[in-house]
Amino acid sequence: MLRDREHELSERYGISFRITGIATRRLGWIADPDGLEVDRVARTLLSDKPVKSDLKLPNVHAWLKAAQADVLFEATALNVETGQPAIDHIRAALEHGAHAITANKGPIVHAYRELRDLAAKQGKRFLFESTVMDGVPIFSLFDQLPAIHLQGFHGILNSTTNVILSEMENGLTFDESLKKAQALGVAETDATHDIDGWDAAVKTAALITVLMDVPVRLEEIHREGIRELTTNEVRNGRRDGWPFKLVCRAQRAGDGVKASVAPEKILSSSPMGRISGTSSYIYFETDIFPGLAITEENPGLYATAYGMLADLMRAVGRVDTASVLR
Amino acid sequence: MLRDREHELSERYGISFRITGIATRRLGWIADPDGLEVDRVARTLLSDKPVKSDLKLPNVHAWLKAAQADVLFEATALNVETGQPAIDHIRAALEHGAHAITANKGPIVHAYRELRDLAAKQGKRFLFESTVMDGVPIFSLFDQLPAIHLQGFHGILNSTTNVILSEMENGLTFDESLKKAQALGVAETDATHDIDGWDAAVKTAALITVLMDVPVRLEEIHREGIRELTTNEVRNGRRDGWPFKLVCRAQRAGDGVKASVAPEKILSSSPMGRISGTSSYIYFETDIFPGLAITEENPGLYATAYGMLADLMRAVGRVDTASVLR
Repeated sequence: MLRDREHELSERYGISFRITGIATRRLGWIADPDGLEVDRVARTLLSDKPVKSDLKLPNVHAWLKAAQADVLFEATALNVETGQPAIDHIRAALEHGAHAITANKGPIVHAYRELRDLAAKQGKRFLFESTVMDGVPIFSLFDQLPAIHLQGFHGILNSTTNVILSEMENGLTFDESLKKAQALGVAETDATHDIDGWDAAVKTAALITVLMDVPVRLEEIHREGIRELTTNEVRNGRRDGWPFKLVCRAQRAGDGVKASVAPEKILSSSPMGRISGTSSYIYFETDIFPGLAITEENPGLYATAYGMLADLMRAVGRVDTASVLR
Repeated sequence: MLRDREHELSERYGISFRITGIATRRLGWIADPDGLEVDRVARTLLSDKPVKSDLKLPNVHAWLKAAQADVLFEATALNVETGQPAIDHIRAALEHGAHAITANKGPIVHAYRELRDLAAKQGKRFLFESTVMDGVPIFSLFDQLPAIHLQGFHGILNSTTNVILSEMENGLTFDESLKKAQALGVAETDATHDIDGWDAAVKTAALITVLMDVPVRLEEIHREGIRELTTNEVRNGRRDGWPFKLVCRAQRAGDGVKASVAPEKILSSSPMGRISGTSSYIYFETDIFPGLAITEENPGLYATAYGMLADLMRAVGRVDTASVLR
């Protein structure tokens, strides 16, 4: 994605970059302040060749320093329980003096206020536009809705369950549908997080935490997955014009927020009823706009990467996320 | 709107303000750098009392100077042919050194590049978020989608025709429906601009001009209004599940853009088919997000005023419209 747009970034936006550090579980912490050849590193990743040891660093702190990092892109897998090790990576980057951009929802749910405040103290950015609805700038949209009051929202935010439910409507069993979603590259090998509603719950918690400014623990979100649904139920729902969808809901209640993730029967001609496959949808209730909805239809392969690219431009360019206005 | 949120603006966002100038066709150019009592001016407007002559200025230039204006809110009526006098007001404000905020689409269609460049030269903002979809931050959303390529869009952007078509579906004649829309306060006394598609065409042109960076003349937009539709046609469309909607469309074609505003039969269960009353809808086609749609359901009375308030916060606060990134 970066490479694709490198020329445009440089010519049109005056942003040039070098990739000076890469870290994966397999490679370890690799850094070279003169710039790494990404293609060569990728080949190393695919082969079994060891990386030259002089580029290897012992930990994230030494790695950020050796890489002379200005921006960290954090893309580890979601840890629902703790948000780690992503939180440590982001904290280390901000302390080092780099902007931190993440596609991982865990740190928002488990450490949003700490990381937001640390970023402000360091004069750096903590950005996470790729965490919800791929790269659609949901959080940035609310930066552009200053002084608005968000009362609640509902939506469909998990693709894997959406694809599985569609396949079950066509008569496949749950297991067959899951295998198909995996074959399509939509579901991960371990799709538990999606199927049991964790992914949708974490997204719901992230939206509540950031946009409603209410810290919410995951345990407080009523959560049901789609594992218990039978092919018959799902087929009948579709046949009757009320297909099942895994719906996220949040509503202010007193000082807090009542939130849930659960399969619901939704009228097929309604906006949520029409969301299928990898599309997603969110409907915000605000005081000024009683209903403000965003639909993302069939996002491209690059949507999540684009969200991180746009965050880079927000961090180093002139796009202001105006976190101070929150 | 400003008064409603005055406390919040001051306490939460550190923005305080004085209204030092008011101008209307009837009052003329009224200014007082110490601040005008808006309630008193409003009473004067409603009564027939003349304004004290020592507050009256001869023209916009003298008025801006006397008011020591930092921000101009321009809200004159749309002049489809020339964009005047709004363009002159905005130009005068920027030259005076004030930010210019407008709810008038005319200046965008007739003088966007000039005013944008003048604002940049003066280090001031030319903002117009209230011109399309009330105050929904459509233009600001695209500021948050840097380096994206917008290939086209379609949508329903005019409320008056939407309300009239709904009433005709219920069996009223065109004239009766128009009277009802006027009684509801949706349509103006002279609703020609709405009915003949001018309002929708100007909005379409504004979106093309700003978001696709293609200057388009109004004459280049194929435009048909709803005046020719009969109650029978409209009723039958609804009955058959294909109601009429006044649809705006734009699509890149070579270096230019092909655009139209015309009544179309739309499948009633589709997103556009479901838009009724004062709701509006826009669907953007981009390279990263093949379909990114925004629905605004039943905007509140303050939606347009909110758009201008948010522009004020963008202009004087920390919300960055990032026009330099365009």
